[in-house]
Amino acid sequence: MTSTDGLPAPLRGIVPPLVTPLSDPDTLDVDGLERLIEHLIAGGVAGLFILGTTGEAPNLSYRLRRELIERTCQQAALRVPVLVGVTDTSLVEAVELVRHAAASGAHGIVSASAYYFALGQAELFDYCQSLATRSPLPLFLYNMPALTKVRFELETVRRLMEIPNVAGIKDSSADMIHYHHLLALARQRPDWTVLMGPEELLGESVMLGGHGGVTGGANLAPQLYVALYEAAAVGNVEDVRRLHAQVLSLGRIYRIAGGGSSYLRGLKCALALAGICGDALAEPFQPLAGTERERVGQIVNEVMSWKVPAPTRLRSKTEATP
Amino acid sequence: MTSTDGLPAPLRGIVPPLVTPLSDPDTLDVDGLERLIEHLIAGGVAGLFILGTTGEAPNLSYRLRRELIERTCQQAALRVPVLVGVTDTSLVEAVELVRHAAASGAHGIVSASAYYFALGQAELFDYCQSLATRSPLPLFLYNMPALTKVRFELETVRRLMEIPNVAGIKDSSADMIHYHHLLALARQRPDWTVLMGPEELLGESVMLGGHGGVTGGANLAPQLYVALYEAAAVGNVEDVRRLHAQVLSLGRIYRIAGGGSSYLRGLKCALALAGICGDALAEPFQPLAGTERERVGQIVNEVMSWKVPAPTRLRSKTEATP
Amino acid sequence: MTSTDGLPAPLRGIVPPLVTPLSDPDTLDVDGLERLIEHLIAGGVAGLFILGTTGEAPNLSYRLRRELIERTCQQAALRVPVLVGVTDTSLVEAVELVRHAAASGAHGIVSASAYYFALGQAELFDYCQSLATRSPLPLFLYNMPALTKVRFELETVRRLMEIPNVAGIKDSSADMIHYHHLLALARQRPDWTVLMGPEELLGESVMLGGHGGVTGGANLAPQLYVALYEAAAVGNVEDVRRLHAQVLSLGRIYRIAGGGSSYLRGLKCALALAGICGDALAEPFQPLAGTERERVGQIVNEVMSWKVPAPTRLRSKTEATP
Amino acid sequence: MTSTDGLPAPLRGIVPPLVTPLSDPDTLDVDGLERLIEHLIAGGVAGLFILGTTGEAPNLSYRLRRELIERTCQQAALRVPVLVGVTDTSLVEAVELVRHAAASGAHGIVSASAYYFALGQAELFDYCQSLATRSPLPLFLYNMPALTKVRFELETVRRLMEIPNVAGIKDSSADMIHYHHLLALARQRPDWTVLMGPEELLGESVMLGGHGGVTGGANLAPQLYVALYEAAAVGNVEDVRRLHAQVLSLGRIYRIAGGGSSYLRGLKCALALAGICGDALAEPFQPLAGTERERVGQIVNEVMSWKVPAPTRLRSKTEATP
Repeated sequence: MTSTDGLPAPLRGIVPPLVTPLSDPDTLDVDGLERLIEHLIAGGVAGLFILGTTGEAPNLSYRLRRELIERTCQQAALRVPVLVGVTDTSLVEAVELVRHAAASGAHGIVSASAYYFALGQAELFDYCQSLATRSPLPLFLYNMPALTKVRFELETVRRLMEIPNVAGIKDSSADMIHYHHLLALARQRPDWTVLMGPEELLGESVMLGGHGGVTGGANLAPQLYVALYEAAAVGNVEDVRRLHAQVLSLGRIYRIAGGGSSYLRGLKCALALAGICGDALAEPFQPLAGTERERVGQIVNEVMSWKVPAPTRLRSKTEATP
Repeated sequence: MTSTDGLPAPLRGIVPPLVTPLSDPDTLDVDGLERLIEHLIAGGVAGLFILGTTGEAPNLSYRLRRELIERTCQQAALRVPVLVGVTDTSLVEAVELVRHAAASGAHGIVSASAYYFALGQAELFDYCQSLATRSPLPLFLYNMPALTKVRFELETVRRLMEIPNVAGIKDSSADMIHYHHLLALARQRPDWTVLMGPEELLGESVMLGGHGGVTGGANLAPQLYVALYEAAAVGNVEDVRRLHAQVLSLGRIYRIAGGGSSYLRGLKCALALAGICGDALAEPFQPLAGTERERVGQIVNEVMSWKVPAPTRLRSKTEATP
Repeated sequence: MTSTDGLPAPLRGIVPPLVTPLSDPDTLDVDGLERLIEHLIAGGVAGLFILGTTGEAPNLSYRLRRELIERTCQQAALRVPVLVGVTDTSLVEAVELVRHAAASGAHGIVSASAYYFALGQAELFDYCQSLATRSPLPLFLYNMPALTKVRFELETVRRLMEIPNVAGIKDSSADMIHYHHLLALARQRPDWTVLMGPEELLGESVMLGGHGGVTGGANLAPQLYVALYEAAAVGNVEDVRRLHAQVLSLGRIYRIAGGGSSYLRGLKCALALAGICGDALAEPFQPLAGTERERVGQIVNEVMSWKVPAPTRLRSKTEATP
Repeated sequence: MTSTDGLPAPLRGIVPPLVTPLSDPDTLDVDGLERLIEHLIAGGVAGLFILGTTGEAPNLSYRLRRELIERTCQQAALRVPVLVGVTDTSLVEAVELVRHAAASGAHGIVSASAYYFALGQAELFDYCQSLATRSPLPLFLYNMPALTKVRFELETVRRLMEIPNVAGIKDSSADMIHYHHLLALARQRPDWTVLMGPEELLGESVMLGGHGGVTGGANLAPQLYVALYEAAAVGNVEDVRRLHAQVLSLGRIYRIAGGGSSYLRGLKCALALAGICGDALAEPFQPLAGTERERVGQIVNEVMSWKVPAPTRLRSKTEATP
């Protein structure tokens, strides 16, 4: 394993996609963010990924995005690497945000592609190449076709792997067959990272060679996901089955409201009930209320009662910046 | 027909979705914009719609979007109303842009919805209501499900029609059945505007009661689209057939390159070949070149040779601001 | 207009896609079929199309399909041409059905393509060519991509137009832009027929050059659709608007139940309430009941009260077989 | 493990979806079928599944389907259970085929749903319930939403599990998250079988609790898939990784032609080159030829050179019918 400026290559473990704690739709919940980051680092995560889909990035104002980057880097204080999502429909704005991330001390960026128009593969390559060329930070590709309208096809990934600054891929497609092909491709570049998005697929993706996961539920229960990662990394199938079942069970909070924002609303509600941060969302999404909130509470109580092994080792500033 | 501050209600005629003339991917082609606006007003258009899909709005930097708004309003000089697309994933940024549009002298805004996440109908309503409430300008809904992932369902439109500041809808879904239902709904509010997006459907939409079209090809040949609109408005089926066939024929320029940006690249190439503005596009799109460019040139030459009736009356400042 | 064996070329007017009257899920309602056919011929239709989507063809047993073909041809008794849908996943079974149709006295067949696998354009061409070659009857293409998973692309249609036995196309895609391109293509073969599927698009399709419609609502109210066709054919825009609004209004019966079978269930319920045939459906579809049935009844009562002009001329055996 | 009439419950292991050997598009390759069945039984498979998607079932004539059922049951001679796909758009025809399968000595049937219309969940339930009620053989559900237009949602599966005659599900959706939820549901009925369709997902599905796979590549290399199944069943992650990589590598034969029939054409070409059966396909599909055929040949040669462990135990008539 090599490492550049505090970023292991490949990056292994759980890199949670942080929710963006808000006190109202356009105001950062500064205390909640602090608590969330400490909760995650104490839980053994291998990095922090802000401004992804789970972070509601596209729905936030640019001012708030910049503030979040600064505060996260300060709070993380080099104990774990910070990755910043910069997916934007405007490449000019994306580059601006990359520069801000670099100046704030982030370790890498994560980018899909302009997502209003449905890009072709050549345009997808151009977007990523253009961004990688102008980025002082390593770039991770973000495969999220349901929301960006385009999948990173294997040939496109292969071409992007030739750019040294492109460091890996986070696959949120939930297409496990595609993931296996991405893993096979990654063997051609040993420093290349392949991370799984959907937490329901974390166990098998790591058992079959993946490097870790960007799993939303880790905001709530980081130790559970770290334990699942670690069991999978050593091929302990029994533990994987048990912890995977717990992850599936936790996931009931994502389906309570129904609709495209159900995941975000359920997760933020759970974090509020667990005392980590408030449940305000950027417009036009609304917090859960009433019986839906109560059902999340019941599941959170269950989750809190589970015995989960402690992470085998806590990530420290020393480890992350050799 | 009533009118508020220079904006007829309903708004009738051709309101072209302006391309954004660029001299490089992040620089406005100021002279090109001036020529384009004069070309359109001379062609008899009923308004100017900037920063729509044809305007590559989501791919432009915010700085450039603001500059385009200012210069378009200045150049139009109240001769025709100016509508500004403000669709944004962040409602905060959308509101900022609305304020800039209002301060610059625009007459209305056009908005779909946050388009990264797939909104449900309740969220779509919330987004539009929130924007309408904060907008000093009338808001036109923009139905573009292929790119925004959500369709304005009839019940959502019906509820939004109850907000006085919501002035109409531009339907770019190419779903003619849905369009007919929207038209039927519009009869409940006589000042409400229903405009057609795809130019291939302009003739029939107006013959059956629609108010006009936001037709991309009008950038190149405004008189053709105005003539088609006028023939349809008076129910001259023979002329509609003939002009409609010309519109279809012109549309060959949109399919030369293939892929999602083919329309934009073909249209900008045609405008460059016609001497109106350059063919630079915002990243990651590239201008057409080589034989593709030559084929566009042949079609442009054909189009230029067509005899099209002059608009029955030129729109004037007087007419637009009673 | 030329004509072959009783089939005009092109075929103009309303060719309703007959529901299949059933007394139970696998038994033909023989009396209902007789009443339906007489109702349609009295209403001025230009032909009868059985075993289409509206006829629930794929859900019927082959025994019942053959019986329906025989009885329909007998009852029509050459007064109007009979077209038979033979779309099948197995080309062998399709050919069998074509032979049965020819032997029973049908005038043409209508075929999409094998619809279990998603065919490519080359395979779609092969399927249709193979069927046309073996068919003693003229073949109409059936463009129904939502159910067959493949669209007849223009180049495929162009190639199929070179086969003399391929007589036209019925476009049920509801994609009006594609329809316009099909119409433009059809000008290359003057005997080629282009029919519209969705009744909401009948008026405009005929005004802009189409030859007629295969409109489901004509089972209930054939005179309404014939009147709309005739107004459109002569370019009477005022009448088209009025009759088109009635067609839209009738269409409320299709959306009462919700779901993919809502159209079929609503239409059969209406026919039962109008005393034409029973409302049994092939499995797994169920007739409407309770308040849904009552709401259909209210709409049927409205429809029955409309004044619709009589067809300008009744189709007769003489006309259909010159 | 319980067993009824030779069918273990749950059914564990590899149950290959047999190609249908053809000597021409409507003629069974009787010798090829015999060789194929012996090849599979020698390879250690746990059952034979005929008339599935891989078997081109919907494209075959009914006469040929019946012949295939008879000959397969005869040749298998109770050494392994025979499952018969009976998915049909017409429930009447499906029931006919079930009866033929039962009379021929098959052990179970596999059914999706009527697939021309897009069924709702209630209709999907009705179809399966109706078929299960009339079937003398246990019914396995077939989840194939890409081709049937409807997914078996969890609540629908839960309701169908209450019917004793519904024995399990084959999930060909390639949606691994859904598969995990199906597995969790299956714990409520210990005799219920959950099989994986896509072979790229076989290893992980069995490691995480699934019972086996219906893997197309097993037609060519049954021992490879049986070995992968057995490694996964005992949690041997190292062997799973290695054999899984071989399965992915073999899968190159499916993508050589491109398009929806590429899988079928590649697989049949490989079987022909391996001397098992001919490569004729039912219309409208065509065998591979030229350089495409050569590329398949190279991959087949590679596959043949792999060392694969022998199945730990050969299935015998004794084992299958205790």
